[in-house]
Amino acid sequence: MFPRHKTREIFVGKVGIGGDNPISIQSMTNTYTQNIPETSRQIEQLAAAGCEIVRVAVPNKEAAEAIPKLVQASTVPLIADIHFDYKLAVASIEGGIDGLRLNPGNIGSYQNVLKVIEAAKPKQIPIRIGVNSGSLSPEMIKKYGVTPQALVESALEHVAILEKAGYYDMKISVKASSVPFTLAAYRLLSQKVDYPLHLGVTEAGSEFSGTIKSAIGIGTLLAEGIGDTIRVSLTADPVKEVAVAQHILRDLGLRKGLEIISCPTCGRTEIDVIGIAAEVEKRLQKYADADLKVAVMGCVVNGPGEAKEADFGIAGGKHQGIIFKKGEILKTVPENKLIEGLLEVIENYQNEN
Amino acid sequence: MFPRHKTREIFVGKVGIGGDNPISIQSMTNTYTQNIPETSRQIEQLAAAGCEIVRVAVPNKEAAEAIPKLVQASTVPLIADIHFDYKLAVASIEGGIDGLRLNPGNIGSYQNVLKVIEAAKPKQIPIRIGVNSGSLSPEMIKKYGVTPQALVESALEHVAILEKAGYYDMKISVKASSVPFTLAAYRLLSQKVDYPLHLGVTEAGSEFSGTIKSAIGIGTLLAEGIGDTIRVSLTADPVKEVAVAQHILRDLGLRKGLEIISCPTCGRTEIDVIGIAAEVEKRLQKYADADLKVAVMGCVVNGPGEAKEADFGIAGGKHQGIIFKKGEILKTVPENKLIEGLLEVIENYQNEN
Repeated sequence: MFPRHKTREIFVGKVGIGGDNPISIQSMTNTYTQNIPETSRQIEQLAAAGCEIVRVAVPNKEAAEAIPKLVQASTVPLIADIHFDYKLAVASIEGGIDGLRLNPGNIGSYQNVLKVIEAAKPKQIPIRIGVNSGSLSPEMIKKYGVTPQALVESALEHVAILEKAGYYDMKISVKASSVPFTLAAYRLLSQKVDYPLHLGVTEAGSEFSGTIKSAIGIGTLLAEGIGDTIRVSLTADPVKEVAVAQHILRDLGLRKGLEIISCPTCGRTEIDVIGIAAEVEKRLQKYADADLKVAVMGCVVNGPGEAKEADFGIAGGKHQGIIFKKGEILKTVPENKLIEGLLEVIENYQNEN
Repeated sequence: MFPRHKTREIFVGKVGIGGDNPISIQSMTNTYTQNIPETSRQIEQLAAAGCEIVRVAVPNKEAAEAIPKLVQASTVPLIADIHFDYKLAVASIEGGIDGLRLNPGNIGSYQNVLKVIEAAKPKQIPIRIGVNSGSLSPEMIKKYGVTPQALVESALEHVAILEKAGYYDMKISVKASSVPFTLAAYRLLSQKVDYPLHLGVTEAGSEFSGTIKSAIGIGTLLAEGIGDTIRVSLTADPVKEVAVAQHILRDLGLRKGLEIISCPTCGRTEIDVIGIAAEVEKRLQKYADADLKVAVMGCVVNGPGEAKEADFGIAGGKHQGIIFKKGEILKTVPENKLIEGLLEVIENYQNEN
């Protein structure tokens, strides 16, 4: 449905990004990286939640020294987030890191860039160039103002440095905390390069606000075929970022997974749709990766018909309800047996398939 | 930033929809409409939360008879949701309703349509034609399959009936529970008509899932300039639908309001950004409608610079933090005084302005 913008393929460890690879999900730890047990635990929590690439901050030598053990313990590729100090980048590569986030214009000199690339090249370690609206240089602001164009030009300056050094294993992000700004920057960038793009809205806010901002920003771009890997930024437990990212991909049909449709309640509803939908969602979590569409509908009259594209569903009447499969009624049960009945038919079906 | 698709202007009571009117927010009560105290209470809760138009289900005579009292008590325009029975539409109009949701092809005969229009015309009561992917007719499915085109053609059949009767005060929705389906349907429809469009993703799901689906679906269309009024559908308290809708509009710059940007935590953070951001968000709710951007940043080094577009902000260091205004540091305070300090400068500023 969305013709995807063609990009080059790079690899962060085993995870292909760009080209025909599926859109991948990233997040970042918020532990002190040098605290190896805590950082490893969080990496595994993220991986278990469906995060495919995890970034860790490497602000100092201690963090860089933790990389080998973190890499060894991790089931997913790791990226080191580096600012200013090229030695931390080189140390991270030597420590077995799978990717870098580093802006080559910010590490002191072109000589330093060459040292990083010398270490990165044999292992094809990709580098993400990540600029954001808050960190534009005064020169860039003078030339273009704080605009999407300034953000893109800033990214392209960093890109040019890597290209000058003959290095092309890169992806790019141009994040802003404003959604329209972010959309404009990525749209412009995608016309100018064929490197894979890493999407995100930066400093998006709390779990609630940030979820909405990220869903609009990332979702709109993906719906235009722009973007190869995504990171939802929330001021919250990073595991929640992964849940939101998965929903965004599923909702756009870019990834298979459980989808629960449920009607808003209205003056016609005769069962507790809110409670039942929440309970069904909770109890079906074990099928989160299944290609399964389940409906929870308020009324028997419209329910099965309106939700006939669902694999299974329930619809409520007065003190009782029906369980249906692809729009066909399987049985009628009392309201308090609806959830059990639905789970039973889904479990039977899943076991058979 | 988003050139808006030009549409005709209609009025639901005092609320203009389409043309150059701002995008309005709608929701729907989930009480029994005939329970006047409960329904009126929910209408007021919705209005207080920022809902500009409230729809009530009118499935029977008792509900229609409640309309005059509900209208009298309401501070916002009301819409009656009617299926099949044109007499309920006529009764609602006579009862003072401000708008109808009714599909003219589903009320029995063209004679019945004329009776509804005869009642609607003198008061210019607009009619929303609302089709959704679950209720396509067998004939339409046979012709086009269950496709966005079928949805649009189905809507246009209803439109043609009103046009034949010389009535043009209408808006249209073509909702599906799938985001790509919804996007395709509205994009197609907006090329074919200049009536205002009512946006929504139907049966979007629980508070969490439905928020994400609605943000992507509604947000993507608004970002393309499509849509004149929106309804977020959640299987949850409808007041939450309004909160999500407001965020969508604000995030796209379509409505002014408080915006809190806050960085995701990372291994560099030395204060409790998650806790502080949540507390700041809660305590600034009284400024929800203010044109105000507030930043909660994890580190002093990048914080004020990255958030210089914020009106006010805080950034944390080790056991202390700074309060800044447009990127300029106002003062340094201990961590446990950060929130109070921020609220104080914002309150002073709001009182002065």
